[in-house]
Amino acid sequence: MAKILPLFSLKHLLLVSLALNVSLIWRIIYDSERELLDAGFSVQQQRRSVMAGCGLQGKESVSKKTHMSLSSSASSSSSLTATTNIESQDGGERVINLDHGDPTMYEKYWHKVGDKTTIVIPGWQSLSYFSDVSNLCWFLEPEFAKEVVRLHKVVGNAITENRHIVVGTGSTQLFQAALYALSSQDASEPISVVSAAPFYSSYPSITDCLKSGLYKWAGDAKTFNRDGPYIELVTSPNNPDGFVRQSVVNRSGGILVHDLAYYWPQYTSISYPADHDLMLFTVSKSTGHAGTRIGWALVKDTEVAKKMTKYIELNTIGVSKDSQLRAAKVLKVVANSCEPSGDEDECFFEFSHHQMTMRWNQLRMAVQKSGLFSVPDFPPQFCTFLGRAFGPQPAFAWLKCEQDIEDCESFLKGNKILTRSGKHFGFSPAYVRISMLDRDENFNLFVQRLSNIVS
Amino acid sequence: MAKILPLFSLKHLLLVSLALNVSLIWRIIYDSERELLDAGFSVQQQRRSVMAGCGLQGKESVSKKTHMSLSSSASSSSSLTATTNIESQDGGERVINLDHGDPTMYEKYWHKVGDKTTIVIPGWQSLSYFSDVSNLCWFLEPEFAKEVVRLHKVVGNAITENRHIVVGTGSTQLFQAALYALSSQDASEPISVVSAAPFYSSYPSITDCLKSGLYKWAGDAKTFNRDGPYIELVTSPNNPDGFVRQSVVNRSGGILVHDLAYYWPQYTSISYPADHDLMLFTVSKSTGHAGTRIGWALVKDTEVAKKMTKYIELNTIGVSKDSQLRAAKVLKVVANSCEPSGDEDECFFEFSHHQMTMRWNQLRMAVQKSGLFSVPDFPPQFCTFLGRAFGPQPAFAWLKCEQDIEDCESFLKGNKILTRSGKHFGFSPAYVRISMLDRDENFNLFVQRLSNIVS
Repeated sequence: MAKILPLFSLKHLLLVSLALNVSLIWRIIYDSERELLDAGFSVQQQRRSVMAGCGLQGKESVSKKTHMSLSSSASSSSSLTATTNIESQDGGERVINLDHGDPTMYEKYWHKVGDKTTIVIPGWQSLSYFSDVSNLCWFLEPEFAKEVVRLHKVVGNAITENRHIVVGTGSTQLFQAALYALSSQDASEPISVVSAAPFYSSYPSITDCLKSGLYKWAGDAKTFNRDGPYIELVTSPNNPDGFVRQSVVNRSGGILVHDLAYYWPQYTSISYPADHDLMLFTVSKSTGHAGTRIGWALVKDTEVAKKMTKYIELNTIGVSKDSQLRAAKVLKVVANSCEPSGDEDECFFEFSHHQMTMRWNQLRMAVQKSGLFSVPDFPPQFCTFLGRAFGPQPAFAWLKCEQDIEDCESFLKGNKILTRSGKHFGFSPAYVRISMLDRDENFNLFVQRLSNIVS
Repeated sequence: MAKILPLFSLKHLLLVSLALNVSLIWRIIYDSERELLDAGFSVQQQRRSVMAGCGLQGKESVSKKTHMSLSSSASSSSSLTATTNIESQDGGERVINLDHGDPTMYEKYWHKVGDKTTIVIPGWQSLSYFSDVSNLCWFLEPEFAKEVVRLHKVVGNAITENRHIVVGTGSTQLFQAALYALSSQDASEPISVVSAAPFYSSYPSITDCLKSGLYKWAGDAKTFNRDGPYIELVTSPNNPDGFVRQSVVNRSGGILVHDLAYYWPQYTSISYPADHDLMLFTVSKSTGHAGTRIGWALVKDTEVAKKMTKYIELNTIGVSKDSQLRAAKVLKVVANSCEPSGDEDECFFEFSHHQMTMRWNQLRMAVQKSGLFSVPDFPPQFCTFLGRAFGPQPAFAWLKCEQDIEDCESFLKGNKILTRSGKHFGFSPAYVRISMLDRDENFNLFVQRLSNIVS
């Protein structure tokens, strides 16, 4: 008994010490959230005044909105402090996987919104292959099409008038549908597909995986000088680096595909409603519903829309109706939340924009503290939707290892942070792409660990 | 007033006449349903005794089962009589489209089952791309995988042990995943893809649509004599003609893909649990949920399963989670309904088998009455699941126009019946494929119209 007592006391002491830690962390978080609460008010007030200026009426339920911010946010400084504890508990042993752009950050918002986005599908519904035989895209659910048009109108990020909507199993399938539609079955050789480096790492492998005789990956658009027709992929804001982009190949015979997956106000300023011939969007990156696998294309040319529809018919005989119905509901709730006449939830884009602002602040602080890395600086631009100017806060960080670290991916892997090397994006391996859309716990652990990597 | 009265009386007379028609039709239907009711009992009794023989316990809730048969069935003779009225009302003007195999026939069962198959998906669920990172097929929902295994066990139509399950956006995507997985990236020329004619009309166009350098459609397996490796597609029972099939190319170097979309007890006898290297299934044709776009592959070889998964990753970054969860629920309800220890609904396969029996009876009667057509005769075979012998009753009728009608599709189109010509199946245009899975109203109208086409 005499031997057990000292051990027991030690455990007690540890317990008291841990309790003290917890209470201190709690206090810090509470204080910083108070700051955030104040900041939250000004954000809301700004937005209201802008919307009033556009003839829209601001929402009054600020108390609910700020409650949501309160319980879901932590300022960058508090997160760094709080995760010190997580990191030390973790001992730097846990592998942090930020290789994929898995948008689990958004779960928090959808939890808060609750039942409004719940969908109920009875067993006898949606048995048929067909959604709307009168539509060129016969597998497009009318309800989904309606909400796509409405959301673009609310956000002001794309023209939908005089366009066909083609739905796809994510924008990845639509990208392939576009390649099929824009290439010629009779051409003597495959059409070149290019994009300015750094380009989305999956473009080359998707384009070339079947060794198609219709199209062929031809690399960096900036150095492309082959004669003949070509397809240029313009991703704006760009994956991986977040910059706003335009076509770079400046000659005739080119067909443009605009991948606008990230042209939403949480990531970048909405400076104009995009008005291109073929534009791709996806719920994965707009609302975070990657698991539903729903994307859409806005297509000007009827023949191109028909051929894209044909591709999806051959590839998967249409697109899941269940997911289309679910996506329709999600888009509806988003539009409702951001329309002044809508319901009382915090506007989805205000919420997610705020999340991204905080995360980029955290990241920049960690980069500064470490001294081993750099991230791009972006010029601010006025956003017609949020009514203020801000710089891009991309879904991915395009991080550079400084001080002669040649292989940034391996270097970070040594610190148990999984990222994607710049070489996959047609660029230098001194760069890596890092997802900024993971859950709070992972993201906070990541910035904490990054800030502690010093030369 | 004098002028109005005769008109009024005429209308009254018409009303009385119509009422008489309705009551007569009702009487005929009632009588035939009584016959059916008696037949229904023996079906159930047979099934119970078989299941008892397999160590399974038969279900007792016959009254509910027969009630379902009662309200959803009409014998062939009564249907022909009843649709005489529909046809004459319709005046033969309505276009009957049976070109596609749209499985809307199954709506009836799912309506009857009611809320049991309803799925509720909250807005915060299934945001991530990933379903199960520990699984080779990382986008496979574990719940769906579980129900696939269970249903195959209940029906006894496929071995699932020591197989990987790969989920796809319908079996069409899985077919392409299989071509990708079974071909070599390093081969000097594309591998030949063959199937015995008449083959599924979409095989050639899906295989060749992208002019792949990996694989190439090489036509009828029966006449295939090229050297080198090849992929043979074995569809059993076959689409379009319903016959049970085996590989026909008898030499080495061949890789088999078994498309078993129709190997379910409503269409054919389950004579053994299929035990092939690569087997494809789909909910579209097993339960009728085509709009969910969910199929699955049972794959023996780990490397093949990995490459199939890779294809689906490149093609659509996984498969709708919403649809997988819905399909899991549907398969669960089907298995429950057919397991003696399950719930009180009529076994899904008993119900749908009975539907198909009636439809084939109706079709054969119409063919006989017309004298201008023929359909295949099938030998009966013992079904281990239903515990009795019967001939195939395929999801499509492979109808031949007799009496020197060369273009059967055009001939039927002249009668406002849309079908798919035999030429699309690598066969004679004297044949057409006709869907047997449309809603009652359309199917009844079709057999009625067909029976009235005489030379």
